[in-house]
Amino acid sequence: MKKYSEMSKEELKAELEQLEASYKEYQGMNLTLDMSRGKPCREQLDISMGMMDALNSKGDLSCEDGTDCRNYGLLSGIPEAKVLLGDMMENHPDNIIIYGNSSLNVMYDTVARAMTHGIMGQTPWCKLDKVKFLCPVPGYDRHFAITEYFGIEMIPVPMHKSGPDMDMVEKLVAEDDAIKGIWCVPKYSNPQGYSYSDDTVRRFARLKPAASDFRIFWDNAYGIHHLYDDRQDYLVEILAECKKAGNPDMVYKFASTSKITFPGSGIAALATSLNNLEDIKKQLKNQTIGHDKVNQLRHVRFFKDIHGMTEHMKKHADIIRPKFEAVEEILDKELGGLDIGEWTKPNGGYFISFDALEGCAGDIISMAKKAGVTMTEAAATWPYHKDPHDSNIRIAPTFPPIEDLKLATQLFALCVKIVSAQKLLGA
Amino acid sequence: MKKYSEMSKEELKAELEQLEASYKEYQGMNLTLDMSRGKPCREQLDISMGMMDALNSKGDLSCEDGTDCRNYGLLSGIPEAKVLLGDMMENHPDNIIIYGNSSLNVMYDTVARAMTHGIMGQTPWCKLDKVKFLCPVPGYDRHFAITEYFGIEMIPVPMHKSGPDMDMVEKLVAEDDAIKGIWCVPKYSNPQGYSYSDDTVRRFARLKPAASDFRIFWDNAYGIHHLYDDRQDYLVEILAECKKAGNPDMVYKFASTSKITFPGSGIAALATSLNNLEDIKKQLKNQTIGHDKVNQLRHVRFFKDIHGMTEHMKKHADIIRPKFEAVEEILDKELGGLDIGEWTKPNGGYFISFDALEGCAGDIISMAKKAGVTMTEAAATWPYHKDPHDSNIRIAPTFPPIEDLKLATQLFALCVKIVSAQKLLGA
Repeated sequence: MKKYSEMSKEELKAELEQLEASYKEYQGMNLTLDMSRGKPCREQLDISMGMMDALNSKGDLSCEDGTDCRNYGLLSGIPEAKVLLGDMMENHPDNIIIYGNSSLNVMYDTVARAMTHGIMGQTPWCKLDKVKFLCPVPGYDRHFAITEYFGIEMIPVPMHKSGPDMDMVEKLVAEDDAIKGIWCVPKYSNPQGYSYSDDTVRRFARLKPAASDFRIFWDNAYGIHHLYDDRQDYLVEILAECKKAGNPDMVYKFASTSKITFPGSGIAALATSLNNLEDIKKQLKNQTIGHDKVNQLRHVRFFKDIHGMTEHMKKHADIIRPKFEAVEEILDKELGGLDIGEWTKPNGGYFISFDALEGCAGDIISMAKKAGVTMTEAAATWPYHKDPHDSNIRIAPTFPPIEDLKLATQLFALCVKIVSAQKLLGA
Repeated sequence: MKKYSEMSKEELKAELEQLEASYKEYQGMNLTLDMSRGKPCREQLDISMGMMDALNSKGDLSCEDGTDCRNYGLLSGIPEAKVLLGDMMENHPDNIIIYGNSSLNVMYDTVARAMTHGIMGQTPWCKLDKVKFLCPVPGYDRHFAITEYFGIEMIPVPMHKSGPDMDMVEKLVAEDDAIKGIWCVPKYSNPQGYSYSDDTVRRFARLKPAASDFRIFWDNAYGIHHLYDDRQDYLVEILAECKKAGNPDMVYKFASTSKITFPGSGIAALATSLNNLEDIKKQLKNQTIGHDKVNQLRHVRFFKDIHGMTEHMKKHADIIRPKFEAVEEILDKELGGLDIGEWTKPNGGYFISFDALEGCAGDIISMAKKAGVTMTEAAATWPYHKDPHDSNIRIAPTFPPIEDLKLATQLFALCVKIVSAQKLLGA
């Protein structure tokens, strides 16, 4: 197929006419399909149902150290949950706090604490004239929502295949002490599915921030969320790397079992240096007597150990890999060679990122919506919902049944073609 | 027995000699007993074990409105949990948000949100020179820890049998717009076990605070936690009363199932006006995608309805009532008529409050500690851990086995006598 940009006006007009006829057909189908959120599908949830039997009324709900998990206590979590999530996060159990059901909540609380009380004795951020965060783009909308909510100025930093533009990150954090943090999804990034290269992680660990209370918010949401057995990304462990680089306190690392067991009913964790942990616990002991230890125990009894969790992740991969491949196949077939869009082919995570021609993303999304296909809203992957290129679209293939997904992707590709052709025709 | 204050010096010295001999015997027993925290005992936890079978791998984990509780969604909780906790709290389900495992966490977050973002458009508290809370005393140490952590000035208000000194509360909130809140445990209060009278609740609802963002923090922790079938306290419902009085937005009401099912693995809730709920949800949607719906469903399936919960509470009462009665009996027998202390005899809740002679509480607690009995630490029931009378001691009878509890109470009474006698002798 010819590139759209190389077609004559007449050719393009003829193409557009055909495309619009197809679109009308889709509209007649009264679809309601959703490719908007990174939600597991029913089959994925089903594989964790055994967890509902992991504890029962006849069993003993004491954890290894003898604590009755049914009662108050153990602010930082039960020992065996620290081991399991420590293994999952590649950190020592002593560096871990097990939280409640949501790592987003942990991130929010981490920012909130810095706002009201500062980090390790530094000025509370709410007392400063200006606080800024670096935001690799495209990125995760809920990260940006937290910093926006707290009035923190967000500075976009371009993402490359190897991670954020580190020249820019290094320069900015070194010269501006109002920059207090950076949001990172370092592995199978949201939405591109990129993983930070070894060099990127090492440069992160060696940052020389002007602000001593600068922290890397390392949201390792997809650390073990591979799609393939034989094509897996590997990430250098950031806590160890920061320690080696003489910056042991510079990172907060977040993870959860939301996309391992049940979203909303899993367990979340934070891994960081002992200094940071001490700082955090001073606050945490005022906020709660402890998180849900019974649910921690339920997770440990279900998985037994990290091997159990790894095997479990293969079942997830088997369910969602065909969905990713179906989307990629349709995009290749429908859009390959047309030069009107680029998309990622990740080895893991929950998303495919699509970059349309500049100025087309919003129109594509609204056109898909009008035919019954919901995509993540336009510009959601940018701070303040402002994509200066109006180009990025996040595709979430996991939730819909595969036949729905194929139909939705077909329609999406059609909308890309129509909006691109209109754009090139100057319509 | 003669009052200590009416004994001659010689009589008192002879008495003290005998008491000290007894104390030595206790010391020889190498006790380690704990009457410090309001924790349910093992038998109480056992009655909720059926909850571990309420869900299983064969069942459907969808809630009434068809939402799959295993996936993301429903920020404010599942409908049937709102009905159950609504019935428990005597509020309409529409006025309720179901949270995670800890009402303390909800209270903390409520204060934190007011600090950084203010209440319903008012100035964030962190931007004000001064924020103050009224603290009925004696009160709950973890309430005071939250306000202390946020640098909020705490003003003690005396508790009477009918509730806080309402003349003082009315006067203070009317004249000082820096007063933004008051901590209340309105039913079976911590530690006295008092319940606010109808008149007190009505006066609360009719407060005329100088600050439009003044809120009553109504921690109804023991709303259905009766000890007796035939002797129960009744509390006028505060939300309804505030609405009637034209102050619909003035109260945040908190509750949880921590002392109904499992502490730390229950569900918490907040009930408040629709205006407040809207204000809160603007924040909450940035903090989390939702709380643990599977655990909400587990609770509803276990209890079925409020009747199931009420019947369940009778089992708790049967277990802990003998413990309260044992403590009261020993205190009556050992200290009755001596005029060296007063204690409460609550109809519900988790505590008995003991007031020693002025200047004696710290010494009594440390003397008990030296013989192996841990009480709640001295002055914990006062803001900043400063009891100006050094008089109040919180007794928590629920956790220890009854024989331990009797022994601990005996020793405690002995320590009261020794320290009081020493005090009267001017030692």
